[in-house]
Amino acid sequence: MSQFPLGFRAAGLPRHDRPRPSRHGLAIFYSETPAAAAASFTTNVVKCVHIPVDQERLRRGQAQVIMVNSGCANCCTGARGLREARKTIAWASQALGVAEDQILIASTGVIGDFMPMDLLEDEIPMLSKRLLSEGGAHYQSFHKAAEAIMTTDTTVKIAHAAFALGGRTVRLWGCAKGAGMIHPTMTPTGKPHATMLAFILTDLEAAGKALKPMLEAAVNKSFNRVTVDGDTSTNDSAFLLANGRSGLSLKAPGVKAKFQTALGEVCISLAKQMAKDGEGASKFLEIRVEGARTEADAQKMAMTVATSPLVKTAAYGEDSNWGRILAAMGRSGVHFDPSKADISFGTLCVFRHGAPTSVSAEKAREPLKAKEVTLRIQLHAGKAQGFYWTCDFTGQYVDINARYRT
Amino acid sequence: MSQFPLGFRAAGLPRHDRPRPSRHGLAIFYSETPAAAAASFTTNVVKCVHIPVDQERLRRGQAQVIMVNSGCANCCTGARGLREARKTIAWASQALGVAEDQILIASTGVIGDFMPMDLLEDEIPMLSKRLLSEGGAHYQSFHKAAEAIMTTDTTVKIAHAAFALGGRTVRLWGCAKGAGMIHPTMTPTGKPHATMLAFILTDLEAAGKALKPMLEAAVNKSFNRVTVDGDTSTNDSAFLLANGRSGLSLKAPGVKAKFQTALGEVCISLAKQMAKDGEGASKFLEIRVEGARTEADAQKMAMTVATSPLVKTAAYGEDSNWGRILAAMGRSGVHFDPSKADISFGTLCVFRHGAPTSVSAEKAREPLKAKEVTLRIQLHAGKAQGFYWTCDFTGQYVDINARYRT
Repeated sequence: MSQFPLGFRAAGLPRHDRPRPSRHGLAIFYSETPAAAAASFTTNVVKCVHIPVDQERLRRGQAQVIMVNSGCANCCTGARGLREARKTIAWASQALGVAEDQILIASTGVIGDFMPMDLLEDEIPMLSKRLLSEGGAHYQSFHKAAEAIMTTDTTVKIAHAAFALGGRTVRLWGCAKGAGMIHPTMTPTGKPHATMLAFILTDLEAAGKALKPMLEAAVNKSFNRVTVDGDTSTNDSAFLLANGRSGLSLKAPGVKAKFQTALGEVCISLAKQMAKDGEGASKFLEIRVEGARTEADAQKMAMTVATSPLVKTAAYGEDSNWGRILAAMGRSGVHFDPSKADISFGTLCVFRHGAPTSVSAEKAREPLKAKEVTLRIQLHAGKAQGFYWTCDFTGQYVDINARYRT
Repeated sequence: MSQFPLGFRAAGLPRHDRPRPSRHGLAIFYSETPAAAAASFTTNVVKCVHIPVDQERLRRGQAQVIMVNSGCANCCTGARGLREARKTIAWASQALGVAEDQILIASTGVIGDFMPMDLLEDEIPMLSKRLLSEGGAHYQSFHKAAEAIMTTDTTVKIAHAAFALGGRTVRLWGCAKGAGMIHPTMTPTGKPHATMLAFILTDLEAAGKALKPMLEAAVNKSFNRVTVDGDTSTNDSAFLLANGRSGLSLKAPGVKAKFQTALGEVCISLAKQMAKDGEGASKFLEIRVEGARTEADAQKMAMTVATSPLVKTAAYGEDSNWGRILAAMGRSGVHFDPSKADISFGTLCVFRHGAPTSVSAEKAREPLKAKEVTLRIQLHAGKAQGFYWTCDFTGQYVDINARYRT
């Protein structure tokens, strides 16, 4: 357990562990003592039930528990959805011996479905009991919790970081889910995209209010730069709990910068894992825009290219059709001079100053055969840059989403 | 020929008519006398070669010929692309005996490829000869021209309209192509989306300057409301030629309103045909937004829903997953109150005032099994409305675009 933050426990019931087939999973993250808490939520106008419930609790900047159900988004479920969410909190409060206002919740799954209350009534006490037992602090328990939040994900997404200062070590552990309806735009950036959930636990000592801007900064450079399908979810949420058990405070000299870096590392790792596990994905794509006038321009253009179905299907077909990249750049809303622009696949320049280079279509395919591909755009208009992570677009994406309810 | 506008000819060499396999097609539309001309072009920042060439010619508002090649977009081809375009105009001028400045051009196909000059040098004279022969005014010639502009289209797209006034009849004939990279946003609206080309011929008498705003109004209510993949093309263009051979003038009392209606009918018919023939499409979808505060709000929301991969894959799977519609509405940038919103499939309401109705998922699927489906959103926020046409998203779309170069 040495790489884990001290004083945390977890438990999870993934859907594939159930005796009968089910789309539902349940996970609990728990701090042995009340922790500082911060979160960042989707900017989608349509918001799931857990967001206002959590926002109310987060005003005090403290929480001890995050309970997560997967398979049901509890979104657009009206008054009944809210009533049921509160009921699950009451069950968890009783089972864990933690006050209701110390319990945050998160949901992901099908919008419009009601919560599986029959299951939850049995499983919340069962899982709480397991968590409070000695097993709750074991590696396997955290792994099970990371599995239990998955929906169409094919792998768990986990990241660690740590830093030491003055003989003390601060540890961070995070997990995330998200494979489809993925295009998060959580506060403060703007536009949301998919259900992604992320849970980051650390034994740093800090106040919730101090953590919030640090979490938002990290989210902005990580989750808010991932898209699978451009469809921002109603449920996107990233949570951070800090229980202080390392004995090192955010206020101590030098800690803030180190923590921001470590938090960024965890978020970036989780965000990339999401793009790599995008529904049906066969490739990870990094879209880099350089030489832009402003960072906002660079981000806008990178996002437009990263969400273009034609660019993403070409990547799947390993087709060096850079014209589709130019068409997406041109509709991005960014003003630029195409006759000055360059496009490269990795380091291979296929388009320079408004005209094709002499690289053959066959040779241009080579860099596209890798599992991880960088599409690089140089505008020669300024010094700003930006990037977006995504994946290719395959027939499997269509199959998954025509058949599976997310 | 009675339904055809008088005094026009056409000729086409579709790619499937060639002796050897080729992706290239060639079409010529020709008025026997100089005609008033207007056009509407993509707002993509990246523009193909034919657009500035045509814009220069259209300043005088007159043209006699439109020559179209399919298979090569002649876009992002630098100085060589421009040189080659001018060369094809010279060939056509010589073969047709029409001044160069009376010849408009249009291209659709792969961005970045150079023009098939060897083919064109032979085929422009050959096709011109055929057009000038008696056959050029036959029904079959117009049909061949409509076929010759196709790329990934599976059917020709043709529409007619006519109106009579004071004993004279004005006829309109139009054809269009467009199946992928389809999300036109031609002037004056804003954002472009795909290669669609449309050619509308009429024997009305009018000045080019008077036609331009009428064409733009028609485009705005038709082509600019179609999306297949959200990818606006660098080549989108709609052309209108009016040669006056009906003897009825746009300036005559009552003509303007009748012509605007007829032009609108032709454009709407062609636009719907494009959505129905969207790459890989199995269904036509109409997204209607009603009760919005402004028409701009209604259009923005309709467009966001119409471009959502999750909504479109659900339509393909005939899955009544209306939560995906709500998620797309919520990320559209339109402010609305989800607790007042309704969603219906056709006339079947599945979500009312922020909560699911009692309609079962199984029953809600029924309207989705049709070939043409209307998704209706009611915001209860005002009186404005809007719509967008699209198609479902299938594995075939991915296959086409992973393999075919557009």
